[in-house]
Amino acid sequence: MSIKPAPPLSHRARIIPASPIRKLVPLAEDAKRRGIHVYHLNIGQPDIATPEEFFRAVHGFDEKVIAYKNSQGLAEFIESMIGYYDRISIKLAKENIVITTGGSEALMFAMMAVAEPGDEVIVFEPFYTNYNGFAIMAGVTLVPIATDPGTGYHLPPKDEIERHITDRTRAIMICNPNNPTGTVLDLSELELLTDLALQHDLFILSDEVYREFVYEGETTSMLKMEGLEDRVVVLDSLSKRYSLCGGRVGCVVSRNTEFMESVLRFGQARLCTATLEQVGGAALVNTGDKYIAPMIDEYRARRDATYEELMNIPGIVCQKPSGAFYIMAKLPVDDIESFARWMLTDFAHENETTMIAPGPGFYATAGMGNQEARIAYVLNAEECRRAVRLLARGISEYNNASRN
Amino acid sequence: MSIKPAPPLSHRARIIPASPIRKLVPLAEDAKRRGIHVYHLNIGQPDIATPEEFFRAVHGFDEKVIAYKNSQGLAEFIESMIGYYDRISIKLAKENIVITTGGSEALMFAMMAVAEPGDEVIVFEPFYTNYNGFAIMAGVTLVPIATDPGTGYHLPPKDEIERHITDRTRAIMICNPNNPTGTVLDLSELELLTDLALQHDLFILSDEVYREFVYEGETTSMLKMEGLEDRVVVLDSLSKRYSLCGGRVGCVVSRNTEFMESVLRFGQARLCTATLEQVGGAALVNTGDKYIAPMIDEYRARRDATYEELMNIPGIVCQKPSGAFYIMAKLPVDDIESFARWMLTDFAHENETTMIAPGPGFYATAGMGNQEARIAYVLNAEECRRAVRLLARGISEYNNASRN
Repeated sequence: MSIKPAPPLSHRARIIPASPIRKLVPLAEDAKRRGIHVYHLNIGQPDIATPEEFFRAVHGFDEKVIAYKNSQGLAEFIESMIGYYDRISIKLAKENIVITTGGSEALMFAMMAVAEPGDEVIVFEPFYTNYNGFAIMAGVTLVPIATDPGTGYHLPPKDEIERHITDRTRAIMICNPNNPTGTVLDLSELELLTDLALQHDLFILSDEVYREFVYEGETTSMLKMEGLEDRVVVLDSLSKRYSLCGGRVGCVVSRNTEFMESVLRFGQARLCTATLEQVGGAALVNTGDKYIAPMIDEYRARRDATYEELMNIPGIVCQKPSGAFYIMAKLPVDDIESFARWMLTDFAHENETTMIAPGPGFYATAGMGNQEARIAYVLNAEECRRAVRLLARGISEYNNASRN
Repeated sequence: MSIKPAPPLSHRARIIPASPIRKLVPLAEDAKRRGIHVYHLNIGQPDIATPEEFFRAVHGFDEKVIAYKNSQGLAEFIESMIGYYDRISIKLAKENIVITTGGSEALMFAMMAVAEPGDEVIVFEPFYTNYNGFAIMAGVTLVPIATDPGTGYHLPPKDEIERHITDRTRAIMICNPNNPTGTVLDLSELELLTDLALQHDLFILSDEVYREFVYEGETTSMLKMEGLEDRVVVLDSLSKRYSLCGGRVGCVVSRNTEFMESVLRFGQARLCTATLEQVGGAALVNTGDKYIAPMIDEYRARRDATYEELMNIPGIVCQKPSGAFYIMAKLPVDDIESFARWMLTDFAHENETTMIAPGPGFYATAGMGNQEARIAYVLNAEECRRAVRLLARGISEYNNASRN
């Protein structure tokens, strides 16, 4: 029997994008094989140790069988999340939380629950690149509204947002503090979102995984906005807060009962989230501020060092961001994708180079972000300085090479 | 500002079903609070200890940060899966595997990749209930073809299957050995599926998570069927094979390169699978037959005990199944959902009762399975016997009560 070609894959299988944060990884691995040290400013993977409490709880797990757990999440983990929220003055009941496999699954469940395939969700560009992947899986159309590097990527005026609301708009999605821009929305911006949700009958999907990473200015959780109880869905994760990215433990939080019942049924289809990470995660609420507060100080120092060095690059456009652990900057290069590759394939100084995440992956609008890069300051301050100096040197060499 | 009602949820959020295996859990918990011991034959959660190698590897993990891992999976876990497949004479390359968060995620990625929303995937009823949930998430229409309790739920004839193939059919999904029926497909049935896939240009999605659970008869992996290299997608999991249900580690396996590249991009959107479970899972291939072979003997004894006791129930319709750890049986009760509830709310004998999974949840066709139940023989043989005797007593009391 001759082998026939396989049937075609689905449209979504063909268009789902490779992660712009990860697609240059093979080039970085090649560089490492050539003996070059690569500073990874491309990915939000902190170098800070996961709390001991996590490992202690995992090592203390003494059940003989790694069994299915409740689809909603391990009871003690849900309790610990209620305790965590209580400490930031947000009162939640057990039915307001479903534990998810990272913030990623929380995002996917939320999109699927609030929007039909073909419905629209508004996002502000640049945005966390994987929103694209989940939107494609959910069949949801992301409607991007541009923000401006020159104003620190804050929200555009109300009428500009309203111009993008159609009868298929179901939600506005925000990330606060923001990945990739580091922008922290101020209270007036949260009020604006509240007004829009009420006036146009929308959900607010609020990705708050960087909640504690605020270095100055005042913001809050969308869960605290009045009148919005049934319209706010918070997507949360322990990944950044407890340096637990590989743990894949997060949650969906909402006071909309019908919504939470649906999310739980989505959760039942996939049975449960990994047991050991939930056991470890449940112990983290006890680490409280003694872990988080010094970590925030450390990141503030890293931000300051990184920003200071960036400002030494002639022609850079960048506002000092107030949160998360990213800086989005417009760099003086013609094409950031080529430059980011070149840094891995052709550049090295004293056997070192720097990897960045090219801007276009954080935009849905074609042609945007061609000179921007996301810089994750997830290394210690001295390493961040060194990595940015390498970037500066790289820009200079790259531009000279292009000119010759 | 007065609180407006929230916007409506999506259609899929409203129709995604509660797990029929799990929805009676609150009643079981109530029974336990009343001091009643509940034998859980409702869920495929084995009582057999997870291999020590898993815990040893987890305890030996000495990285300070639980960091993101590769989206395709931890290199050593992929290697271990290649080794596992090699031992069952299936040669795979690294690019033929993507590690997933359980067989569940493998299923969802596969459905999304082979079918457009609105496309059809053929399944044989009764089928693993959560296929419904993933089909709803993927927007795929499951087209059920009935199998018959009287023939042990084997595949219907070719023309009966062909009658259900339309121009929107993209795949036939099987589970072999089968959950919920315990049926093992024989080689002629696998040949039939091969012919259908080639003649009608279809993918075969083959859920083989119970691969080792075969007590008699001969079957094989769809990966071994000739001429089908580009059309077979295997959904696999360590959950059953290593009593690791809460670990949520599985994989998608296919030799279709384009398909695997798409699955990897779906995987990149969710970053990675939980680190510790992958570390533990990677150690399991070394346990090999020394763990699996005695476990299969144990399940064979449980099946025999369970089946023998079931045959003492007057009016039961049930063929002895050859695989997995389930028996699907038609019980002499008018309505299985009511009966299953009644066993938890009203019945007890010597302070004990039995929980079963009602049949209708395993059917997509309304009105089917109203007298069937899935019985998971995941307790030791004596407990299985006791649980089935309670079931027999329950049926008798229930029918007497209805009659009076």
